[in-house]
Amino acid sequence: MSEAASRLPFSAKSRRTVEQPISYLIQTALHNPHLINLAAGLVDPRTLPVEQCEQITQRLFGDDARARAALQYDTTLGLRTLRKELLSHLARVEQVPEGELGYSADDILVTTGSQQVLYLVGDVLLDPGDIVIAANPSYFVYTGTLTSLGATVVAAPMDEDGMDADAVEQVLLRLQREGRLSRVKLIYCTSYFDNPTGLTLSLPRRRKLLELARRFSTHHRIMIHEDAAYRELRYDGQPLPSIKSFDRENRHVIISNTFSKPFAPGIKLGYSAMPADLLDAVVQQKGNHDFGSANVCQYIALNALQSGMYQSHVQTLCQSYRAKRDAILQSLSRHMPKHPELSWTKPHGGLYVWLTLPADIDTRRSSRMFQRCVSAGVLYVPGDYCFVADEHGELPVNHLRLSFGQVAPEQIDAGIQRLAEVVAQEINEHGAPKMGQKVTSARA
Amino acid sequence: MSEAASRLPFSAKSRRTVEQPISYLIQTALHNPHLINLAAGLVDPRTLPVEQCEQITQRLFGDDARARAALQYDTTLGLRTLRKELLSHLARVEQVPEGELGYSADDILVTTGSQQVLYLVGDVLLDPGDIVIAANPSYFVYTGTLTSLGATVVAAPMDEDGMDADAVEQVLLRLQREGRLSRVKLIYCTSYFDNPTGLTLSLPRRRKLLELARRFSTHHRIMIHEDAAYRELRYDGQPLPSIKSFDRENRHVIISNTFSKPFAPGIKLGYSAMPADLLDAVVQQKGNHDFGSANVCQYIALNALQSGMYQSHVQTLCQSYRAKRDAILQSLSRHMPKHPELSWTKPHGGLYVWLTLPADIDTRRSSRMFQRCVSAGVLYVPGDYCFVADEHGELPVNHLRLSFGQVAPEQIDAGIQRLAEVVAQEINEHGAPKMGQKVTSARA
Repeated sequence: MSEAASRLPFSAKSRRTVEQPISYLIQTALHNPHLINLAAGLVDPRTLPVEQCEQITQRLFGDDARARAALQYDTTLGLRTLRKELLSHLARVEQVPEGELGYSADDILVTTGSQQVLYLVGDVLLDPGDIVIAANPSYFVYTGTLTSLGATVVAAPMDEDGMDADAVEQVLLRLQREGRLSRVKLIYCTSYFDNPTGLTLSLPRRRKLLELARRFSTHHRIMIHEDAAYRELRYDGQPLPSIKSFDRENRHVIISNTFSKPFAPGIKLGYSAMPADLLDAVVQQKGNHDFGSANVCQYIALNALQSGMYQSHVQTLCQSYRAKRDAILQSLSRHMPKHPELSWTKPHGGLYVWLTLPADIDTRRSSRMFQRCVSAGVLYVPGDYCFVADEHGELPVNHLRLSFGQVAPEQIDAGIQRLAEVVAQEINEHGAPKMGQKVTSARA
Repeated sequence: MSEAASRLPFSAKSRRTVEQPISYLIQTALHNPHLINLAAGLVDPRTLPVEQCEQITQRLFGDDARARAALQYDTTLGLRTLRKELLSHLARVEQVPEGELGYSADDILVTTGSQQVLYLVGDVLLDPGDIVIAANPSYFVYTGTLTSLGATVVAAPMDEDGMDADAVEQVLLRLQREGRLSRVKLIYCTSYFDNPTGLTLSLPRRRKLLELARRFSTHHRIMIHEDAAYRELRYDGQPLPSIKSFDRENRHVIISNTFSKPFAPGIKLGYSAMPADLLDAVVQQKGNHDFGSANVCQYIALNALQSGMYQSHVQTLCQSYRAKRDAILQSLSRHMPKHPELSWTKPHGGLYVWLTLPADIDTRRSSRMFQRCVSAGVLYVPGDYCFVADEHGELPVNHLRLSFGQVAPEQIDAGIQRLAEVVAQEINEHGAPKMGQKVTSARA
């Protein structure tokens, strides 16, 4: 067989699909087991609901009729009794009566983690060349997915109040001027304690994002994909209503939630509510993907909610993560060198702290700093993974993401100390602060 | 908002995606609970492994370290210990030493049911307009998936020996003459007790299909997707080596298997082995879909294999389904009118019997016969769902699929009797046999 003839004929989508950058970090962590891993987006293994799942599965498999139902196929949309519980749960989290959500249980879709619904919504709305507006920085697994789908991500900056809605407006106005508004399909926003910054979209910006989606829906309906994965991991501050809560007519918002962060990634379940016409298309697409997520997991989730174990577990988790969040912030204050260009976020929830270094320090995986950190025994996520290049192809390279999710509480201080020592060394070698550094290139 | 502006901007793929026809049958069954359901592709609820899963989950959640691992994320490829067990299992099923499979555990991918790998392989290889060669009739969920992906399904007929490899050769020669060989990406074949006919690909045809994939790989490598979902549900006859077993170099075959049929659909796990270059692309695609199937389910599957419960459960299942297979064949002999154009398959495994009626009897969902059956209290799958139209757009409409999977043993005879009475009535009203009827139209 000739070389050409032995080649696999990959699809255009496959050729656009690149390895998720996180794979490299996972490999690095596996090969360096002594590392204090502040990179992993995993949840804390110490607080996983082992006893709860033991009780739940004993109850489930001890009840013959339920067990048989759990081991059989269910529908593509998901187990109906679970979707009814999820409707009540969404109302509790939103702090409104169930009737005010504007949903029925049949407007809720259960997916294989919330990643699957990010993919499905993209698959159903996006053709190559279509535009998704996202914050810079953003959740990099999703932007990788969008690249695979052929979509163009147009980024809007964010600040302490989350994605900058005024900047989104400017982006939309520019795209309108350029005659490209017809390609804008989605605005993606992680509205609570986001990945990677830990920051939350402010109340006025929630209203404004929805108003923008409405106002710029001149060619077609522009959707907001509200990723609320970290919503329930709130450690202080006031609860905020979702963007969705302002969309009373249920026209513009997909709100996605997950069991992975507030309960257990191992049952791999997400759930989303969205307008009925979009849901129909998404369910048909899911029919082709898998015609329904694992039913046993859906019964575990159902039982966790019905028994109240889920709700009390979230409280336990919040206590535990709050202490770790406090610890990482204290360690950063204690160990990081004082420098006018060095700062970090102070998240009220979630699993992440976002660190900004002096502009001339390069944090990329190819950088001296990254290698020094690995040698010193600490791992972080290079911030450039989380950025979309601007129109000049430039990416900021002086940020990094720290996660206090998986790391043991007693390791946090040592991890931050190791990191701080490398940062101090970098600052000393670079000398005086310069203006913001960006590089024109793909990830190194 | 104007009507245009309120419209959702669906992707080309979404516009190609049609509702799976089975949805209508599920609705019909739900609204007519008295029906004897010979349509459902569900497994038998009576033989689901309830006690086994009770033991497995007690053991799993009673072991703190394993439980914590099961509740955490794992890799996109799947739990490594499970993949090692699956490698041994594949060797046992193939009846060869593990070393002769030509695989390592890292060549095995765990997916959310085997449907997910059918989708992923399609997603990675198929651009709109590409060609997949499949048997006529074929597994209709998959052909629906291919339509959604924009692929053209070119069908080759089948007979008692399964997909007609000589006809596949003729199809390939024709496509070559037409200059379309460069669009042929996949040959899809359910090689054991297939859905919908229950028939198995003969040994010579296994060799020949592989030989064809090799011979016609002139532009690029043509793959065979061997769907072995029903392989372990064998009730009599000799076990056959897989198509894959002849592909020693591991170049041309993806072999897909599932836990749904031989264990439990509720854990929603499939597993596939394939060439490494294809696997890399498929895993990257799965990274975008869900970055890994439910880990708890993978631990249940692992424990079922390691404890031997899986293997003994398959034996129990085969006994139970063998009795039901015998019952449905006996009932068909007893009740069906004698007619030279009326016949059915006698499967050695799987869950299906395929019935061919006189050519002028229409079995479609819009037909008088279908309505009469619903009124008489029996449901079947219209055979036209399983066919791809030929080049003239014609579909045979005188077949139907019967499943003995879900139906209770004591209902089989009554179900077949009801069906046979309707068939007899149809034959009487149609008079003398005519030549083969086909219709030029989509499904009614």
